Amino acid sequence: MAKDFSTREENYSKWYNDIVQKAGLAENSAVRGCMVIKPYGYAIWEKMQAALDKMFKDTGHSNAYFPIFIPKSFLSKEADHVEGFAKECAVVTHYRLKADPDGKGVVVDETARLEEELIVRPTSETIIWDTYRNWIQSYRDLPILVNQWANVVRWEMRTRMFLRTAEFLWQEGHTAHATKQEAIEETERMLGVYADFAENFMAIPVLKGLKSENERFAGAVETYCIEALMQDGKALQAGTSHFLGQNFAKAFDVQFTSNEGKLEHVWATSWGVSTRLVGALIMAHSDDHGLVLPPRLAPFQVVIVPIYKNKEQYDLVCEKARQIMGSLQSKGISVKLDDRDTHKPGWKFNEYEFKGVPVRIAIGPRDVENGTVEIARRDTLEKEVYQLADIENKVDHLLNAIQDNLYTKALAFRENNTFRADTWEEFNELLDKGGFILAHWDGTGETEQKIKEETKATIRCIPLDNHQEEGKCIYSGKPSRQRVVFARAY
Amino acid sequence: MAKDFSTREENYSKWYNDIVQKAGLAENSAVRGCMVIKPYGYAIWEKMQAALDKMFKDTGHSNAYFPIFIPKSFLSKEADHVEGFAKECAVVTHYRLKADPDGKGVVVDETARLEEELIVRPTSETIIWDTYRNWIQSYRDLPILVNQWANVVRWEMRTRMFLRTAEFLWQEGHTAHATKQEAIEETERMLGVYADFAENFMAIPVLKGLKSENERFAGAVETYCIEALMQDGKALQAGTSHFLGQNFAKAFDVQFTSNEGKLEHVWATSWGVSTRLVGALIMAHSDDHGLVLPPRLAPFQVVIVPIYKNKEQYDLVCEKARQIMGSLQSKGISVKLDDRDTHKPGWKFNEYEFKGVPVRIAIGPRDVENGTVEIARRDTLEKEVYQLADIENKVDHLLNAIQDNLYTKALAFRENNTFRADTWEEFNELLDKGGFILAHWDGTGETEQKIKEETKATIRCIPLDNHQEEGKCIYSGKPSRQRVVFARAY
Repeated sequence: MAKDFSTREENYSKWYNDIVQKAGLAENSAVRGCMVIKPYGYAIWEKMQAALDKMFKDTGHSNAYFPIFIPKSFLSKEADHVEGFAKECAVVTHYRLKADPDGKGVVVDETARLEEELIVRPTSETIIWDTYRNWIQSYRDLPILVNQWANVVRWEMRTRMFLRTAEFLWQEGHTAHATKQEAIEETERMLGVYADFAENFMAIPVLKGLKSENERFAGAVETYCIEALMQDGKALQAGTSHFLGQNFAKAFDVQFTSNEGKLEHVWATSWGVSTRLVGALIMAHSDDHGLVLPPRLAPFQVVIVPIYKNKEQYDLVCEKARQIMGSLQSKGISVKLDDRDTHKPGWKFNEYEFKGVPVRIAIGPRDVENGTVEIARRDTLEKEVYQLADIENKVDHLLNAIQDNLYTKALAFRENNTFRADTWEEFNELLDKGGFILAHWDGTGETEQKIKEETKATIRCIPLDNHQEEGKCIYSGKPSRQRVVFARAY
Repeated sequence: MAKDFSTREENYSKWYNDIVQKAGLAENSAVRGCMVIKPYGYAIWEKMQAALDKMFKDTGHSNAYFPIFIPKSFLSKEADHVEGFAKECAVVTHYRLKADPDGKGVVVDETARLEEELIVRPTSETIIWDTYRNWIQSYRDLPILVNQWANVVRWEMRTRMFLRTAEFLWQEGHTAHATKQEAIEETERMLGVYADFAENFMAIPVLKGLKSENERFAGAVETYCIEALMQDGKALQAGTSHFLGQNFAKAFDVQFTSNEGKLEHVWATSWGVSTRLVGALIMAHSDDHGLVLPPRLAPFQVVIVPIYKNKEQYDLVCEKARQIMGSLQSKGISVKLDDRDTHKPGWKFNEYEFKGVPVRIAIGPRDVENGTVEIARRDTLEKEVYQLADIENKVDHLLNAIQDNLYTKALAFRENNTFRADTWEEFNELLDKGGFILAHWDGTGETEQKIKEETKATIRCIPLDNHQEEGKCIYSGKPSRQRVVFARAY
């Protein structure tokens, strides 16, 4: 399994690609920049979806579905928005093919040209706000709390599986509110949901903060984000929640009669996370033995591998294994019993270790005799012999311990890789080590842009409730009131 | 609510559209032929997805995800396939927009033309079999049992919400097998899953059968289908399962080494159902009072409406209502308590009746006193006073009774509208009444085509295990061995 597998130190980028491919998570497709998400990778995404969907519904949201196509003219209605997305749009211009007159397959039928081109959605604010216009007349129609699970397309030139692909899967929440205050509360609430999900399901600690103006979503008044730190010291934006003000309501003429009888524009938010989170999950926890998955998002939490030498032992061991599987399942633990006779136990051990299954149970004839099993945990690679009595509670406890340990490790890593820089020199030195760098910034987009050009570092966020202190911008030397978080990023 | 609402008899087509729109299921979007699925309509689809997804997993399938784009050349690789889909393809030709030099919004950037056009998938056999080539080397890699939940686009000229839209949501299973026999078994197994779902969740009886050659899926060796009868006497194809033979394996060069060491082409199936099922659900059960939903697919099965005259009564009644909600939920029943003070009970009664909520519970101060509630069932519109004791089991029982009643009614309707025609004259008379018509057919595509042209009726299916009897084709008079099922169809 781990043949030709790079370690993180040798080649971090290859290490990542090796895990994605060799653990069966995804692969490149025949279409430039688009990936195939394979069953094991998709199962992780399904776990993410289930947890997030429940959190969205628990906070009052419903799902809906809007068209994949956006009329070209819609994009232009919000000036910043079109500026942000026009350069990476997949454009549908025709609606029919015909037989090639030269007899070689099919060609575009030039008589079937669309009057107005359609864009494959890069995000859905425009088509959704065009729809909301008909849904909203009075304050009684508000708030609208809608989410959509969908595919989107952004024609990225440099792609990387899960982290940046031309097509990706995501959810996009789009809400409409009667007041500015309520919309801001919603934006912050959903940022909280994302942070909760990242920390408690993905076991990844995140910084919550605001984007600088340069890094804001195209069309937003304010972009909130959660930022995570990967093992190579690069940052990864794991989710964003946008306060859109009245920008889209004005662009699409969405007004409502307030309870004072006044006609006002509606306030908006949008928020999303994507299959990029699978990439973050891989990078945050995996090691030189392959993928490591937190139990709460693992497609199966436990794998049972029977050890045997002959048919008699196989029957004996598998019967016991099925009993154990039943006990674990009764506790809500997901289990795979790999009783295939076509692969040896050693092969299976490697396979599931590489695939990051949190707990492996091995059981042989002597175990059956002794009423024991051998349990290996993926995070620490420790093995231990357990008595079978009460096994479901022991494994449940172990799964919780693994979940906690992964979070604790990731948090310690972030703490050990968060630095303060007070001079330009320090800043550059620290950047080469990697990590989050807290540094003073004069607050201008110009300085931010120059820092980016010279170092490839960006402002990841201005943390919420940021500590205020007097200082000098590391680049311009101008006065600053707070440190912001810099890093090189995915 | 029911203002301007057509009855079935007045205008069946308008009746259908009224339900779709006024029950908040869907609406037309700004993009020709594409609909917006609104939260209540999407919630029905989510219920369908959850039930089907579980059935797919219980039969050994995993989900995965393949690109939305298909290189144009892929479509041409299977001759029948391209013939079937080329005329309704959305074609992506460019990947960038730019500012209009005339200053009016954005235009397509002609310098960003794709070398090869991409088709927005109308179905995914081609891109998937191109992928499977790399997944399959040996018989040990088989079977592959994969399903995808996705959006697809077919540029239909005449569209109708849910029933026929340019973009629709669906699932498409794509499996690969070592033997013909195994692939046929899979095709039939999934047809069985669809029939089970239609009958036990949707409460719609279906005929299981084979399509005639003319009606076969483009690229299939054999297409199996389930056919349902709508209240206007038209048929609706509710799901298809295709035995694809080795057609796609040959087109994409997918071979495997058998366990005898021979190189062979892989056998394939594909099978799908779509958001069209929501249309079928509406048409099968709804009445002149609006939507009627079977309890197993209703977004919420019970609505509780408090009746009160003042704040004191409101508090009293709502407290009791919440207790009832808790009891019902503990039994796994989904409940909405509509305690809004902005709408009157009468308005709410109409609203939920129109939305097809299976059970309505009304509770007023006198009910609280007497320990009773009033329960109305949507299918029969009957009302009854229930004692509160053991309410969760009574309601559970009632929901099962409603589910059964809807199925029984639909089955009786189908039986009363299934006819035998022995002459061309009889056939034409019966067609005007609507329903399934069992008639002899000479087995040729030519005759089938002529019948279609003259009557708009098509062969819906040749039922599985069809009764064999000697007869004469109603059109050509030539000998026939069995009756097939004709109908006009959606």
